[in-house]
Amino acid sequence: MNHQEALTTYIAAFVAELSAAGIEDVVISPGSRSTPIAMVMAEHPDLNLFVHVDERSAAYFALGIAKAKKKPVAVLCTSGTAAANYYPAIIEAGISRIPLIVLTADRPHELRDVGAPQAIDQIHLYGHNVKWFVEMSLPDSREEMIRYSRTVCARAAATAMKYPSGPVHLNFPLREPLIPALDDRLFNLQERTEGFVDIMQGVLTLPDEAIQAMASALTSAKRGIIVAGPLEENGFASSVLKLAELLKFPVLADPLSQLRSCQQDSGLIIDAYDTILRSEEAKAALEPDLIIRFGAMPVSKATTIFIKENPNARQIVIDGGGGWRDPLISASDMVYCDETYLCNALVKHLSPSKSTEYLDMWRNINLHTKEQIKGVRDLTELSEGKLFHLLADMLPKGAALFVGNSMPIRDLDTFFLKNDKKIRVLANRGANGIDGVVSAAMGAATVHQPMYLVLGDLTFFHDLNGLIAAKLFELNITILLVNNNGGGIFSFLPQAEQPKHFEKLFGTPLDLDFSHAVKMYGGTFISVKDWDQYQQAFNETKGQQGLHVIEVSTARDRNLTEHRDLWKSVSREIRNLLDDAKNDG
Amino acid sequence: MNHQEALTTYIAAFVAELSAAGIEDVVISPGSRSTPIAMVMAEHPDLNLFVHVDERSAAYFALGIAKAKKKPVAVLCTSGTAAANYYPAIIEAGISRIPLIVLTADRPHELRDVGAPQAIDQIHLYGHNVKWFVEMSLPDSREEMIRYSRTVCARAAATAMKYPSGPVHLNFPLREPLIPALDDRLFNLQERTEGFVDIMQGVLTLPDEAIQAMASALTSAKRGIIVAGPLEENGFASSVLKLAELLKFPVLADPLSQLRSCQQDSGLIIDAYDTILRSEEAKAALEPDLIIRFGAMPVSKATTIFIKENPNARQIVIDGGGGWRDPLISASDMVYCDETYLCNALVKHLSPSKSTEYLDMWRNINLHTKEQIKGVRDLTELSEGKLFHLLADMLPKGAALFVGNSMPIRDLDTFFLKNDKKIRVLANRGANGIDGVVSAAMGAATVHQPMYLVLGDLTFFHDLNGLIAAKLFELNITILLVNNNGGGIFSFLPQAEQPKHFEKLFGTPLDLDFSHAVKMYGGTFISVKDWDQYQQAFNETKGQQGLHVIEVSTARDRNLTEHRDLWKSVSREIRNLLDDAKNDG
Repeated sequence: MNHQEALTTYIAAFVAELSAAGIEDVVISPGSRSTPIAMVMAEHPDLNLFVHVDERSAAYFALGIAKAKKKPVAVLCTSGTAAANYYPAIIEAGISRIPLIVLTADRPHELRDVGAPQAIDQIHLYGHNVKWFVEMSLPDSREEMIRYSRTVCARAAATAMKYPSGPVHLNFPLREPLIPALDDRLFNLQERTEGFVDIMQGVLTLPDEAIQAMASALTSAKRGIIVAGPLEENGFASSVLKLAELLKFPVLADPLSQLRSCQQDSGLIIDAYDTILRSEEAKAALEPDLIIRFGAMPVSKATTIFIKENPNARQIVIDGGGGWRDPLISASDMVYCDETYLCNALVKHLSPSKSTEYLDMWRNINLHTKEQIKGVRDLTELSEGKLFHLLADMLPKGAALFVGNSMPIRDLDTFFLKNDKKIRVLANRGANGIDGVVSAAMGAATVHQPMYLVLGDLTFFHDLNGLIAAKLFELNITILLVNNNGGGIFSFLPQAEQPKHFEKLFGTPLDLDFSHAVKMYGGTFISVKDWDQYQQAFNETKGQQGLHVIEVSTARDRNLTEHRDLWKSVSREIRNLLDDAKNDG
Repeated sequence: MNHQEALTTYIAAFVAELSAAGIEDVVISPGSRSTPIAMVMAEHPDLNLFVHVDERSAAYFALGIAKAKKKPVAVLCTSGTAAANYYPAIIEAGISRIPLIVLTADRPHELRDVGAPQAIDQIHLYGHNVKWFVEMSLPDSREEMIRYSRTVCARAAATAMKYPSGPVHLNFPLREPLIPALDDRLFNLQERTEGFVDIMQGVLTLPDEAIQAMASALTSAKRGIIVAGPLEENGFASSVLKLAELLKFPVLADPLSQLRSCQQDSGLIIDAYDTILRSEEAKAALEPDLIIRFGAMPVSKATTIFIKENPNARQIVIDGGGGWRDPLISASDMVYCDETYLCNALVKHLSPSKSTEYLDMWRNINLHTKEQIKGVRDLTELSEGKLFHLLADMLPKGAALFVGNSMPIRDLDTFFLKNDKKIRVLANRGANGIDGVVSAAMGAATVHQPMYLVLGDLTFFHDLNGLIAAKLFELNITILLVNNNGGGIFSFLPQAEQPKHFEKLFGTPLDLDFSHAVKMYGGTFISVKDWDQYQQAFNETKGQQGLHVIEVSTARDRNLTEHRDLWKSVSREIRNLLDDAKNDG
């Protein structure tokens, strides 16, 4: 067997199948060992190639594309620690159920564990953080091995997508010389030119009796709520709202449920729960007897405490991915069934409930709480809460908003209220890391426009290298940098009461002027001094090409005070409201 | 058992033992779950704390300290993908045998695999890339568990050091509340206040008969050479030179053997081998009958090819770490014995050889080749070869030089000739990655001064975040940035003959003006236009505090030509030399 022919045919078959399996994007980091795969990919007419030097950013960039597109994306790197740089994004992809196909080039067997350069042990490099690992055969052009190459590829794509989606890892031992023979016949497949194997993916359903039993349990609940956590499935939003409408259950809608910003809503969506549930009176008044949860755990700590404090409520956790999303140890029913299917099936078995008393109480408290939240509009100084609140006004219709972890996603949860602008909210909420956020947003920007990213300064710093994507791939993105010079979230935690080492260990101010970095990557940077400047800067970036960073400098201590003031005034308001209701009653 | 008391006592015992075991430095990345360990460390009077936000850089920074100090360094991070960011440095530490103690905070058992925030599976997170993994018990103040905490710590330090040194990983499940009770009695240990257990580490030795047998094999060799690869052990340099002196064996000294720049040398060190061994005539004339190799594989590809092409020579590989450093599949004898011990033991059994014919041939060719190499001094345009050649002149005595992978370490090997300036050369030559080089050099700069770092632009970009260490920890370092706007090494590889996708996949120019980034981190930046400016800039940074970056812009294609021209002229010179010798003979 001719070495180059084997190399070329085997890899070309793999790459052709990758495209046939629906993969459109590959993110490549330069390297020598991966040469044949990279070169063949570059020849493929239907693959978008992104060449990204920093593998950590590259993998998060791929994750961002996959998240935005809901399709698997391939990443390719050379042998050695390059592959280890993928690890954070792979773990995030696993937990947040994003399909990634990780391709690593490796030294062949005779160069392993013998001190050869750039040779590390890549077998099961990512442990059980990937859904599937394959040590590929050496390139081989025999008919059977071409079939092997193609089926492994098709399986990899299908396994990455199979619910719960996640990363798969294929490791390619490659021997020198590494140059394939590129010619017009590169992708001329001998067999099944449209794809070697189509893979049909079933959906988890429940038998009719189970649906009926659940429907009657839901009907008999007097004080039922739906908690819609992070979940982005086609059709889910409208299905769950139909279900809620029949049941007259309030829907506590996490920003990543995509329910905060959808056009269908018959007044069932509760968007101020995070503030409401900080009030002990509200929690007592709103005590549920049944909770249905969809999606990942919601970001709101107040909500999770509320769930935990009600162990006597029937707690039904729905997970089409078959995980065990119950850190509160409160689930009474764990339901492995496709979420949209389940909602639709339940709707068929339900007649509309007439009892709206519990729902009305939620609605009423929600309404009053929102009025309090809207009070942030009156703040004259730059404020994190106001910034997140104004996003619903300021973002263009149909925009996508990528949100950083730590404080931003929490502030979004608290202050970004229901609207009908179909704003798609994205975040890395698998492991909630501050790493890779810039890159994931950049990846998403290749799919969704206009794209906004809002994040804190430590998160921005952590993945500053991710900005290069904007320059190299000419992406359009506006970044709202909430710069409180350090780790703002720690001011809300008990660590803040220990002043001795606080700034050194937790506050960690970096004192960086990020305008330099943004300039290096060809972006515009403006640090706004007040709300007028902010509005103006924001409006000026609308419809603009390229990278734009708007820095909003805030103060960690003032931010804490603002949050606490809000919680206090809401608690007071709710107390009054409940007292009034009692007196009326 | 009181929660806070258990937390405090258990962690304080661990941290006290860490210091007792000789650990001086800890690199901490901020996070909540790791709070008790971080706060207790901050209280310890004898620990240097470095707080570094980006865990990838943080781990490489720790690796740099450990490499420079030859002592274990601890790194600490919170739960989640933070820990995954350590992976590249951990793998590098494993292969390059650098002792690291990786401490990760984790969620307690009830918050694992249940969708809790920032919870990933940290059990065996790094697979077998660490030498030892311990899932710690929950904090516990009972006497037995304090002993447990202390012995695990002592074992971790000893295991990290035990040859071959490497990383160990301890995972700490920690339950809220996370605040320890800091008071004056924090480190008041109840038992064995100076350290719970002293661990004595044996050295691999061989019985006298084996030494004698090896001595006689060496004596009977007519054409023996010593290949000194990367190895930095106390006493090794002088021991191996004594051995070579008795045997009259030339020593091919990799820059990381530290033999290029030592004061002892009786003319045995061959420093131009990488250029010499590109000549077929030289290789034929210098064919060895015995090769002893110490340390990791040398960087020189010409040398490794030479070794591989001489399978009939007896090839003795010495490894005190008991690895299998033989990617060439050429070892005839694998010797697991401490290198310094072995050299000293052999010396005792050897009498001086009188035959210097083979050595003289090497010396002669080396001398002439060096003259050719020195020809780069005459280049007027900025050149990579000349830059590395001049380092031996320009670096101050006793300086440390951290060298980037890819081209810089190869150019150093080729152009940085023997000198007596005791320049310590450091590099990440485990997996040879372009990642983490800036941070490793920054870590080394906390130990060794003056510190220089020479690296290419892609390597610089990959770890640009590493520069922040210079700002936050007020380090002194001068960076020589060889900017050829892309991946210079690929011009030397067969990929360069495939122009179609070359720049996109391999050249990968980033077109970055790095002055912005350097400015952001408070450094000075100068891009020099010619050799005078370079000399001047170099001299100006001498003795200066802070971060200084001198950019030398070179051209990838011209660099290739210069290297090829040198190889050609050396081959011609050697041919003439050998012809002359033949004619004389």
